[in-house]
Amino acid sequence: MFRPEIKVVDCTIRDGGLMNNSHFPHELVENVYRALCEARVDYVELGYRNSKKMFSTDEYGAWRFCDEEDLRRVVDGVDPGDTKLAVMMDAHKSFPEDVMPADESLVDMIRVATYVKDIDKAIRLAKVADDQGYEVAVNIMAISHEGGMFLDEALQQINSETNAKAVYVVDSFGSLYSEQIHYYVGKYLDHIEGKEIGIHCHNNQQLAFANTIEAIIKGANYVDGTLYGMGRAAGNCPLELLLGFLKNPKFNLKPLLRVIGESIMPLTREWQWGYRIPYMITGILNQHPSSAMAWLDADDSNTDDYIRFYDKVTEDDRPT
Amino acid sequence: MFRPEIKVVDCTIRDGGLMNNSHFPHELVENVYRALCEARVDYVELGYRNSKKMFSTDEYGAWRFCDEEDLRRVVDGVDPGDTKLAVMMDAHKSFPEDVMPADESLVDMIRVATYVKDIDKAIRLAKVADDQGYEVAVNIMAISHEGGMFLDEALQQINSETNAKAVYVVDSFGSLYSEQIHYYVGKYLDHIEGKEIGIHCHNNQQLAFANTIEAIIKGANYVDGTLYGMGRAAGNCPLELLLGFLKNPKFNLKPLLRVIGESIMPLTREWQWGYRIPYMITGILNQHPSSAMAWLDADDSNTDDYIRFYDKVTEDDRPT
Repeated sequence: MFRPEIKVVDCTIRDGGLMNNSHFPHELVENVYRALCEARVDYVELGYRNSKKMFSTDEYGAWRFCDEEDLRRVVDGVDPGDTKLAVMMDAHKSFPEDVMPADESLVDMIRVATYVKDIDKAIRLAKVADDQGYEVAVNIMAISHEGGMFLDEALQQINSETNAKAVYVVDSFGSLYSEQIHYYVGKYLDHIEGKEIGIHCHNNQQLAFANTIEAIIKGANYVDGTLYGMGRAAGNCPLELLLGFLKNPKFNLKPLLRVIGESIMPLTREWQWGYRIPYMITGILNQHPSSAMAWLDADDSNTDDYIRFYDKVTEDDRPT
Repeated sequence: MFRPEIKVVDCTIRDGGLMNNSHFPHELVENVYRALCEARVDYVELGYRNSKKMFSTDEYGAWRFCDEEDLRRVVDGVDPGDTKLAVMMDAHKSFPEDVMPADESLVDMIRVATYVKDIDKAIRLAKVADDQGYEVAVNIMAISHEGGMFLDEALQQINSETNAKAVYVVDSFGSLYSEQIHYYVGKYLDHIEGKEIGIHCHNNQQLAFANTIEAIIKGANYVDGTLYGMGRAAGNCPLELLLGFLKNPKFNLKPLLRVIGESIMPLTREWQWGYRIPYMITGILNQHPSSAMAWLDADDSNTDDYIRFYDKVTEDDRPT
């Protein structure tokens, strides 16, 4: 697949930070950033710029806030080529007044993450970011929970009220099959004009890469991936697979192979992400993976008793 | 997806045996078989019935040969319900004279695995198996290497010369994308009449489950999976994901969850299968994973030097 409009967005450090409260050493982040620039990935999202009023700086690491001085330590001395820098702001965990003018910042793009119910906060934030001079994208999380009328309204609002470059389909729970990806991308195309469609997938059912391909086939042009699929719980679409699929000759796979070996494989021995049965269960049940993460983190020798986990999460799910 | 014609074939022990020379304890195989019967999977393939003239019984375990007495130790005492027993015979590694009459055997189905180049051996074997009273399927391996004129001829021969119930698309190297799966299933449908199409995928690019779904959507009705994706190298389509996707209410997921926890997770600590970068590299290069398996098995602390591996296999691949 070679379509020059396709933009690849790496969010290894941002989504990976949901595993470890965004505690990554600066040296690791620099090595990741350097490799992604060499690979000529279009955007690198180095973390969240969320509010310190809502996240304790004792508990959360630098990449939950992406202060300019932390970004500078990482990007200084690296030739970015055409690679742009992005941060994510959660609509419900950050404030418009924290958006400084773009010409005082290293950041090129602000991605606003939102649930459908918070769409008005997201639009306000997207407008401020646009006014301050940033590129803007809006990532609508958990659409598998709110995919009907309210999603339609949210898309119409984003379309008419913001200058977002891209609006994302986000399969937060890794629950969607290809036919649903086709449905959602089609729905976005029906409501969005003059903006691109994006895709961000989770791997609970080992479908993150496949669903990203399906979204691309249907017309999505902003595509998220992470190195070796690193990300919350089952992780994300592996960036190295995505670059193998995209035929645009500008991309280089080898820097990704290098940095996965050097910087990511050591993390696999510390943090476990990727396909595991409890994540698969929350995926097929269309649930947030938090129950599975807690189950696997518990100091319990019975984490392989998957029937007990299944019964627990289906019991929790039952209306009372 | 609920289409009553769909038959699910588990090949955990058969494909998993390519990791460990088919050395599985009888107790483990019995636990797997019992769970698959409880889950109401249509066929359970417990191993190969290959020739002892071609495989040393010192080197290879019971499940490379599936002697009747080994099968009996496992299935005795288990209520199979409607679940049938299958074995695989490699066209180039077994002999027609080893096919005993079906009414003297516990086996219901013989699956003949073949390369396109060995198709005449495969057809001879399929005919003998049919004559002896078995259900027969033909699995055409490595079609990503021989997908053109010779594949067409092979399909025509199988169609006209055998009574196979199913003819399989086998993505041996895990190299195919969804559009190629559509292409191959379409090609099979063009050449095959009165027989079903099957799909057997490997997971080098994390596409085994997704490609199985795509084949089903295009009309494949015999679908292979393995517990937790256990199988050679990157492994196969995870059976538990497949049953989550298929909506036929006859299937039970819970016995699979139980046996994965009890019998398969302990094997993950002994044998490594699943997505790893060297398997991904051979996948995108459309190569047999043997070089990657050797690389990862080597007593070498530099197995994470993926650029060296990439250079090695692309160098090996270059015409001289």
